[in-house]
Amino acid sequence: MRVYLDNNATTPLAEEVKKEMADSAGIFGNASSMHKDGMLSRNLLEKARQKVSSGLGCSPDELIFTGCGTESDNIAIQGFLRGTDKKHIITSKIEHPAVLNVFKYLHNNGYEVTYLDVDEYGAVDPELLAGALRKDTALVSIMTANNEIGTIQPVKEISERIREYSKDIVFHTDAVQGFGKTDIDVKKMGVDMMSVSAHKINGPKGVGALFIRKGVKIKPVFIGGHHERGLRPGTENVQGIAGFGKAVEIAMAGMKEKNEKTGRLRDKLKEGIIRSIPNIKINGHPETVLPNTLNVSFRDVEGESIIMMLDMEGISVSTGSACTSGTLEASHVLLSIGLDHASAQGSVRFSLGVYNNEQEIGYVLEKLPGIISRLRDMSPLAKKSECK
Amino acid sequence: MRVYLDNNATTPLAEEVKKEMADSAGIFGNASSMHKDGMLSRNLLEKARQKVSSGLGCSPDELIFTGCGTESDNIAIQGFLRGTDKKHIITSKIEHPAVLNVFKYLHNNGYEVTYLDVDEYGAVDPELLAGALRKDTALVSIMTANNEIGTIQPVKEISERIREYSKDIVFHTDAVQGFGKTDIDVKKMGVDMMSVSAHKINGPKGVGALFIRKGVKIKPVFIGGHHERGLRPGTENVQGIAGFGKAVEIAMAGMKEKNEKTGRLRDKLKEGIIRSIPNIKINGHPETVLPNTLNVSFRDVEGESIIMMLDMEGISVSTGSACTSGTLEASHVLLSIGLDHASAQGSVRFSLGVYNNEQEIGYVLEKLPGIISRLRDMSPLAKKSECK
Repeated sequence: MRVYLDNNATTPLAEEVKKEMADSAGIFGNASSMHKDGMLSRNLLEKARQKVSSGLGCSPDELIFTGCGTESDNIAIQGFLRGTDKKHIITSKIEHPAVLNVFKYLHNNGYEVTYLDVDEYGAVDPELLAGALRKDTALVSIMTANNEIGTIQPVKEISERIREYSKDIVFHTDAVQGFGKTDIDVKKMGVDMMSVSAHKINGPKGVGALFIRKGVKIKPVFIGGHHERGLRPGTENVQGIAGFGKAVEIAMAGMKEKNEKTGRLRDKLKEGIIRSIPNIKINGHPETVLPNTLNVSFRDVEGESIIMMLDMEGISVSTGSACTSGTLEASHVLLSIGLDHASAQGSVRFSLGVYNNEQEIGYVLEKLPGIISRLRDMSPLAKKSECK
Repeated sequence: MRVYLDNNATTPLAEEVKKEMADSAGIFGNASSMHKDGMLSRNLLEKARQKVSSGLGCSPDELIFTGCGTESDNIAIQGFLRGTDKKHIITSKIEHPAVLNVFKYLHNNGYEVTYLDVDEYGAVDPELLAGALRKDTALVSIMTANNEIGTIQPVKEISERIREYSKDIVFHTDAVQGFGKTDIDVKKMGVDMMSVSAHKINGPKGVGALFIRKGVKIKPVFIGGHHERGLRPGTENVQGIAGFGKAVEIAMAGMKEKNEKTGRLRDKLKEGIIRSIPNIKINGHPETVLPNTLNVSFRDVEGESIIMMLDMEGISVSTGSACTSGTLEASHVLLSIGLDHASAQGSVRFSLGVYNNEQEIGYVLEKLPGIISRLRDMSPLAKKSECK
């Protein structure tokens, strides 16, 4: 048995997406070409653009396709800043590296950065944000939902505070993790730019998109031909983009019911862990949280040991972002919500997907308590605790 | 009948590549994840890296995967310049927009650029390049082969001139169009960085690669996680990359014979056009040229009219780079080799691929003369010529 509970890292391709991509594999023209082969690709591209923009609640001409969520974030942030002289930018301490590391780079290159604290659940306080706004603030970037602990940010309230202060400050949100798992509507949320990615919603890897509200001016960072309004030059990945369109279509159909089902399974896992394993802590917001995400700190054990032992039992989970795995650093998200280093290092993220079922959760609950118990028996940390 | 002669814009997916991608569609883990699903993806990724690097003659740890050729060019050029204070850079006047427009951007942002002239065949003179080198020259970027006229540049000789002058100047080549159609070996060619793309060699769109010689230091332009040594952050497109690996494998097998076959078909087309249509000019080098490319100027007609008429007969060709199509500007490549505006506007690029055959070339030669003759009959340019 193989149980995949690492859907925040990436998701399996939906069968419908595989089929869409196989069906479009023969449509190969360059979407910029004037002949029929080009037109066929262009049609496929624009059909997908309709689908993805409808999923975001924007107009198709407000959406560009990119190569991944990281690219969307970089085009949004670096691209907007290339067109303004204002030098103050704001983000939170628990952003994904695709945003946070861009801000660190900018910080080292002439920008003044405010990194907002979050509360013990990982939420940004809109009033704190409001107090950080300045005359020279160019851009605010706050994620829609956190990838490690699932906490959903008050994006609409943040947007309102920004608008009250100034109409000129641009508000970007990385919705890579929120898309498909919480209500997304760029208009209702009041954002100017939004990044999303196909492979987090059972679509293909190598495709992302960026919503840019009409009127927001950004400049290209990578420069070349005129594709995607010159903002993401390079021959469009028509097959992958068609797969993205299909993935959005199926993600949007019955999204509420699917999320309710995922939420029930996640709660079953959570309650089972609470019931069967002592000395744990659930991280993230108890209610305003993605329905699929469960982040747990297990006292006196290393998260990496847990995921290796679970892996041997056929269960895939992670310690946090796959984008920082292998670095041996404690999660910046968990440290920011107040965990000490040991607890942060002893944390595991279970992230469910639309294909998980009751039986799989039962299997995890059958294996996990024994693993934690064995690891604690071997742990020098646990022994040291006993010695005291 | 549909005849596709626009293979320099993009190529159809090879059946073997489709199969490879379908076979790997079930391997979906994030290549950065520590569990088995991650490991399976990582294995696929590294297998593909072996294949592509073997096609370039480099070591696998000298190759990063990107989202397209344009991205490779941008990472190479912008990324290298982010790590040096030297402000002089050199390129040719006939580069692809993915290089030329980056140089134009840099030109407007504090860099001094030398744009080298080319001869009437589109070749860069290594002596001219040698004369342009300076103490503050940071980087030279000269393409391996031109996408519009097929002329192959004396890359090795250019590299030798650069090395004679200084060991510190970095030499990048955009080999997107040359890869698979001419001998490529980064060591023999003496280049420091080389860009290639999958979709020009019957691989998938949305995947490129960049060779970076060991010891050459470049900084990321898009910033995020640690993927591809941090130089191209974002979850790796494992399925597409596996397809790229397969495409390189089949392109390299019997490459010489395939190119000889393509060259024979191209020559048949060229001779047929010369024989049956008056007032034409063949553009590009007569010998040092890609075996698949034929660029022809037809006097007194618009290139766009020709491609639309051919399209109606089921033949796909283009006026030049798909990356500049729709802009109505005359090709910068054709103007640089000395064509006047009218001749440049009346030019068509026929670019063959491995799947073309004799019958298809015969069909084009059957349709083309009548189309040119009809267009010339309608042309005000031709009539004006008669009036004189």
